[in-house]
This record gives sequence, C-alpha cells and structure tokens, in this order.
Amino acid sequence: MVTKPTGGAIGQAFEMLSVETSGPSLSDQTAAVRVWLAHIGAVDGMLTLFIRHTSASLLIQENADPDVHTDLLDALDRLAPRERPYVHEIEGPDDMPAHIKSALTQTSLSIPVQAGRMLLGTWQGIYVVEHRDRPHRREIALHYLGTFRD
Amino acid sequence: MVTKPTGGAIGQAFEMLSVETSGPSLSDQTAAVRVWLAHIGAVDGMLTLFIRHTSASLLIQENADPDVHTDLLDALDRLAPRERPYVHEIEGPDDMPAHIKSALTQTSLSIPVQAGRMLLGTWQGIYVVEHRDRPHRREIALHYLGTFRD
Amino acid sequence: MVTKPTGGAIGQAFEMLSVETSGPSLSDQTAAVRVWLAHIGAVDGMLTLFIRHTSASLLIQENADPDVHTDLLDALDRLAPRERPYVHEIEGPDDMPAHIKSALTQTSLSIPVQAGRMLLGTWQGIYVVEHRDRPHRREIALHYLGTFRD
Repeated sequence: MVTKPTGGAIGQAFEMLSVETSGPSLSDQTAAVRVWLAHIGAVDGMLTLFIRHTSASLLIQENADPDVHTDLLDALDRLAPRERPYVHEIEGPDDMPAHIKSALTQTSLSIPVQAGRMLLGTWQGIYVVEHRDRPHRREIALHYLGTFRD
Repeated sequence: MVTKPTGGAIGQAFEMLSVETSGPSLSDQTAAVRVWLAHIGAVDGMLTLFIRHTSASLLIQENADPDVHTDLLDALDRLAPRERPYVHEIEGPDDMPAHIKSALTQTSLSIPVQAGRMLLGTWQGIYVVEHRDRPHRREIALHYLGTFRD
Repeated sequence: MVTKPTGGAIGQAFEMLSVETSGPSLSDQTAAVRVWLAHIGAVDGMLTLFIRHTSASLLIQENADPDVHTDLLDALDRLAPRERPYVHEIEGPDDMPAHIKSALTQTSLSIPVQAGRMLLGTWQGIYVVEHRDRPHRREIALHYLGTFRD
C-alpha cells in the first residue's frame, strides 16, 4: 500500500507511560500502548517507544510462554554476572550488570501502525525489562507520527 | 540540509517483505529494500524495518566478507548456547537460544533516506538473521515516511 | 499531548555528524545533537541517529560516572573476546570482535523531541562506541522529522 502525500494529513501525538516494577522481570505494555493508539485515533503511521533509563530497557519478545521470560532473565544474568569485580560499585552490586543488560537490549523501539493496529506478529509483546533489584518507577515516552481518524 | 515544512509534501508507504530462510544464516535484504524505495518513488525521509518474529531478527552488518557472518553466528551460539538447561524446552533445543539471540540483536531498524538513497555506509548491508534450525517464512514490515517523487 | 494534523506543519532536516575516535571508548555526542536541534529550530518530532559503520556503534548510556564506561567496554570485551580463533582475521585481531560488539549494541537510535528538547532521562547520554584499536573518523547521520519554529 502506498499513501502518497495528502496535504495536512500527518500529525503527531506524545504520551508518557509510567510503569511500576518490582525487581528483575518483563512487564507487558502491549495493551497499554494499544489503548493509547485507540484513544488518539491513530490510523497509519509510526509508533516509537523510548525508555528514559539506563538500568531498565525495552524488548519485543514472545508473549505466550512465561518460561521464556525466566530463561531470558537468566541468560542476561550470565552475560552480565554480578559476581565480577566492577569499577562502578557505588550504587550496589546489581547496578553495573543493569547498565550492561540495558546496553545489550533496547532503549528505543519503532513499530509501524496500519489501519490503527501495530504490525506486531502473533507472538510478539512489548516489554519493559527491569534490571535492578529494588522497585522502580520507569518512564516510557510514546510518540506517534502519522494519520488520525477524523 | 534543512527541508523546512512544505505543505502536503510528507506521505507514507507500507510493504510486507517475505523472506524464506533455511537454518541459521544472515540473509541480505539490501537490494529488495532498495528496489522498493525506487518503486514507491521515495526521496527524503525515514525508512523503518520491523521483523514480526521473536526467533529471527534484523541486523546491519558488514557486506563484504562472508566469513564475518560465519563468525557472527558462532558468537551468537556462544552467547546463547543450546546445551544449557532451559525451562522453556517445549519447542525444541534451538528455540530458547533463538529468543535470546533475538533479544540481543534488533527487531526494528531505522534508516534515513536522502535523495532516494538509504544513508548506509559503504560496507553496510541489511540482514534478516534466522536463529531457528528449520526453514521459516519470515515477514518484515517496511515503512517509509517522507517525500515522494511527483 | 496530542497534536492533530496541521496542514504543512511537518518538515524534516538532515545532518552528517563526524566523530574522531582513538581506540575503544564511549564518545559523548549529546551536546552536539542538542546544538543541531536548536540550530534547525526543532520543536516537536522524532530524531533518528544512524551510524554508517559496522565496527563502531551507538548507545544511550549513563552519563554520570565514567567508571560505567570502563566496565561496559570490559563487558563487551568478555562477550566478544579477541583471543578466539575467528575465520575473519584478515583485518586484524580487533576487527571481528568489533563486528560482534556492533551487532550487540545499536546502529540506529530513535529519540522523541518535545518543545525543542530530546526526551532523554536525567542520566542518559548519547554515545558513539568505538570498537577498533586505531583512530577512526566515524559518520553519524542525523535526521529530524517534525515541526519547526517559524
């Protein structure tokens, strides 16, 4: 499908999504984002998610079997083990591993939206991944650029 | 170069690219994307690629020496070994490693387009990385937002 | 905040940022990007950064304690050690690890801009990560799509 330029048709919308976490976990944001897109009347365009932190990150991951999340957190622990001697230790033993895990995953995600729906695959969900031990309030900036319902 | 707002100049186009894979590999999509941009008459704008799967992913990688791809797949195998005990084993020993490899690489890519050409460096190619053993048909959503030829 | 379509309001701007590196390091580009956004008169929109290389990459990381950068480079060295036998050795022992590190981090970043400011968190900076030993000149394409000051 090609939508050629149509005068004045492209607009944009912003939102700040706030997520409460409690320790290492994947927190599903798919429904919240879907609700927001419906609320603003998004039709065709580009959705961007941006997490405003460096010790939590974003991922698109499988949404069916929660065991995948367990194994994924375990894999990140092996890739960024907390038992190593880090120079940066002032914020606790879970902080430097959290920065490394964030570097290995995503700070921003871009998802096309068509006919009001994100073009996610059947098994894809949008997740905030918390890498710190203690509860945190995480902010995700949402941005949509595209056409809107009248 | 600054292109200030020009009424009605910005439009968009969508496409679904289908890629047949046969086992772990990097599959070059650069030419297919280039053909699509020419077909729609893209001039200046932003191209987004989004893969609709969680056991295959996207990467921009070196396009000259195929040995780089061999070493890269080998590196991903070491980072997400299949010989480990995973909780999620129901879909086979290559499935959980595939999810981990996808998490460590990209689901979406954003590439600026100027004067009809992607601003890729000389040695950059766009790849679908298959992480599963068996052949799969993978879908990549393409989205272009920008100006078009008349 | 919702900005509904306003005829002719959305435009775009491109720039090529050139960065001189000297060995593995994180080089802060936040101020340079901020200056550019002010220069073009960006108001509300989407900023994309795209690095045109496969042995250097982009990251959003903590901007407060330089020890984080030391530990992060060390972590990347462990994930992509140069002491392994690689097939691709023709460009030196630091080249294949550099491609792997690039694959594990980012080639493109998308950052929402609101009221002329990037929506970065307090502790977030934008970095070019050099993975090669020798000095390089790296090019980062900047693209802004959104509204502009009159």
